[in-house]
Amino acid sequence: MYDTIKIMATLSTQPYKGTRDYYPEDKRVQNYIFDTWKRVVERHGYQEYSAPMVEPLDLYMAKSGEELAGEQTYAFTDRGDRRVAIRPEMTPSISRMVAAKRQDLGYPARLYSIANFMRYERPQRGREREFWQLNADIFGVNGALADAEIVEMADEIMKAFGAKDTMYVIRVNHRRLVDQMMKEYLGLDGERAHKLIKLLDKKDKMGVDEFVAAAHEIVADHEVLTKLSALIRAKTVNELPDELKHSDTVEQLRELFGLFEKANITNVKFDITLMRGFDYYTGMVFEIFDLHPDNNRAMFGGGRYDGLVGLFGVEPVSTVGFAPGLTPTELFLNTHQLLPDLSPSTEVGIVVVDDNMTSALDIARQLRSEGVNVAVDTTGRKVEKQIKAIIKNDIPYAIFIGAKEIEEEMYTFKDIKTTNEEKMSLERIVSRVKDRRNKQRVVDDDELFE
Amino acid sequence: MYDTIKIMATLSTQPYKGTRDYYPEDKRVQNYIFDTWKRVVERHGYQEYSAPMVEPLDLYMAKSGEELAGEQTYAFTDRGDRRVAIRPEMTPSISRMVAAKRQDLGYPARLYSIANFMRYERPQRGREREFWQLNADIFGVNGALADAEIVEMADEIMKAFGAKDTMYVIRVNHRRLVDQMMKEYLGLDGERAHKLIKLLDKKDKMGVDEFVAAAHEIVADHEVLTKLSALIRAKTVNELPDELKHSDTVEQLRELFGLFEKANITNVKFDITLMRGFDYYTGMVFEIFDLHPDNNRAMFGGGRYDGLVGLFGVEPVSTVGFAPGLTPTELFLNTHQLLPDLSPSTEVGIVVVDDNMTSALDIARQLRSEGVNVAVDTTGRKVEKQIKAIIKNDIPYAIFIGAKEIEEEMYTFKDIKTTNEEKMSLERIVSRVKDRRNKQRVVDDDELFE
Repeated sequence: MYDTIKIMATLSTQPYKGTRDYYPEDKRVQNYIFDTWKRVVERHGYQEYSAPMVEPLDLYMAKSGEELAGEQTYAFTDRGDRRVAIRPEMTPSISRMVAAKRQDLGYPARLYSIANFMRYERPQRGREREFWQLNADIFGVNGALADAEIVEMADEIMKAFGAKDTMYVIRVNHRRLVDQMMKEYLGLDGERAHKLIKLLDKKDKMGVDEFVAAAHEIVADHEVLTKLSALIRAKTVNELPDELKHSDTVEQLRELFGLFEKANITNVKFDITLMRGFDYYTGMVFEIFDLHPDNNRAMFGGGRYDGLVGLFGVEPVSTVGFAPGLTPTELFLNTHQLLPDLSPSTEVGIVVVDDNMTSALDIARQLRSEGVNVAVDTTGRKVEKQIKAIIKNDIPYAIFIGAKEIEEEMYTFKDIKTTNEEKMSLERIVSRVKDRRNKQRVVDDDELFE
Repeated sequence: MYDTIKIMATLSTQPYKGTRDYYPEDKRVQNYIFDTWKRVVERHGYQEYSAPMVEPLDLYMAKSGEELAGEQTYAFTDRGDRRVAIRPEMTPSISRMVAAKRQDLGYPARLYSIANFMRYERPQRGREREFWQLNADIFGVNGALADAEIVEMADEIMKAFGAKDTMYVIRVNHRRLVDQMMKEYLGLDGERAHKLIKLLDKKDKMGVDEFVAAAHEIVADHEVLTKLSALIRAKTVNELPDELKHSDTVEQLRELFGLFEKANITNVKFDITLMRGFDYYTGMVFEIFDLHPDNNRAMFGGGRYDGLVGLFGVEPVSTVGFAPGLTPTELFLNTHQLLPDLSPSTEVGIVVVDDNMTSALDIARQLRSEGVNVAVDTTGRKVEKQIKAIIKNDIPYAIFIGAKEIEEEMYTFKDIKTTNEEKMSLERIVSRVKDRRNKQRVVDDDELFE
């Protein structure tokens, strides 16, 4: 059986390009972010679902921008000659699932998942080929209330991470307003409108002069350019030109901003240049934008897409959703130094002194029966080596089990961080560990709703 | 943008063959199983990690059986001409990760993950193309203590699900004993040994006569056949023939069974016919076998595989692990009727009577700030329709918000299951909901360690 082993002795320990290994210390950060997402959306009544990691390629061809389905998916042909793809996003899957049980679901159907996706992209800061996202969507509610709920959750997630209003801004726009602006107000044909949308989408990544020059190339007409620059300067819907201001769309936006006020969301602003990538948005779109000078970028966003469920041959279902990503969130937390100290799940490491393994295993079982997470060092190495391993594994407490401890039923309990040592009964050890755990839980809850 | 939509109006709502959609009620079962796994392994000091869903194909070619890497993987060529595969199992990835940080990890390194995998198989009862597994492995401990720890956790997981000793049995064997049995005791050459191993692996799925006939075909020699049948009848290591009984391997097994006794694992038995599929096992192997007549099958297993980390060109690291699967566990729980009632995360549905949406949203915010998971019906539909949706979503409680309730600050609180209705203050509602939640938590903990 070991014939192949020698041949393969050069196997790389590197993960596949654009993917990441999460060792326990990284996984703790991931779990902290996932748990925070979970807590916020569950507070709003969202229930968790899960969808397959592979779907028929058609699912993505039907709804995504060409780029995503064509060039960015991990698509391949299976052994049954089916064209399939590793999911590049969740909305097609959840739309399919809602369509499949359209009659059986209770509306509003509030659904969320936390899952990984793959896109064939050039890996860069904040962008990986395999990436993790929360997807939270509300189905079956037309109108500003559902739009506001999604934005409110996005804002609460930021607050739950400890973000202050000064650290980010929420930009809001409406897809129909963009259409009206392009067609009716600026009078652009489809091709030029498309180009201008792409340009506006990149606006934050370019200088003003560069932007003006590029805009000039798309819209040669001076009058139209003047109109465009007036539009871009509108900081609220009230500052929009009269031709656009008196539409149903703007009425909806006004209602939406009224709801933001009631929800006490203060750092939200109207931004007619906000485009968001996907073609399938049909109404409100928004994004959370990081204001830190070192990380000045869109973190995540969402919007309304009422057309997707209908693609499956059933009556359409109104849908709004958003999808924060793990890596952008991590970047934000690191940039603003918001990441808390995260302890591992293991609370106690047992150091076995001399030949007392049987007693050590016994004591570990007693501690576990009281709910403590305990790792026993079963290597039989020297005490110093055992302690080193506990430190490497970030375990906060160590207990030493030697003959004297066993006889006295008092165990040396060491706080690794402070290096304090104290002799204690098992009961006291259990309550010390639980105190610590409860303290951490309370901090978690306090952060969420102040 | 909707040009493609009409063409695609026939998009199927079915998931890809052999994969499954988990709607909230299914996801709750999944989460119950995941959480139980997590609780048990974390009690033993295992820390969570996560690995990429795609790996270089070489990783699987180097270590798995030919079948798995060759025919059963979802392998394809990426746009950079790399041969990659969707992971069919976790051990190669975690072995790679340990090899990459061999010097930095603290040993024993106890690591676990819960992840999904894909294999190209004919879907059947209990076997899907996309499947979920816990993988828990201990690295850096040679000898029976680590073997026993893994089996103990497997047993505790069964007990945590409410299983009794009569419902399953743990079968244990040793890979080296199999080698000795084949080569030294039965005197078989490599090819016949391999065939006999495959046959023994299928033994439980065939009748006695069928098995004897097949064995006869591989081992023509009558004397050898007699020896084989004597071997198979050995119920403990003490019943093994003398030629095998006095080896280091059997000594290790004796030590192991001694540790099982100390850990109070009573339904474990030696079974020399236990083979387990993977070629990479080097020591103890075990499996949990369901004893229910309707589901008489191996549920999951594990064993020692000391050779894998060394494949990456570093010093080998002793490893033992196991990998219970979601679907086999679900089958077991269903067959033995052990699945508890699982409530959704959403605890309260708010029914908005007449035109009181603003107050309803306000009350929802108050409840959330107290930690209650609340869904507001924002559709503006009739009360009856709102209640129906709450029932469909399995939400246990409803609160009615009408003009009178708002004035009195007393809200009609309905228990959906009992249909009891009562007027209550928000404070009482909060404590009722929290009582229910705490009761469920306590049940969870009690089940784990009795």
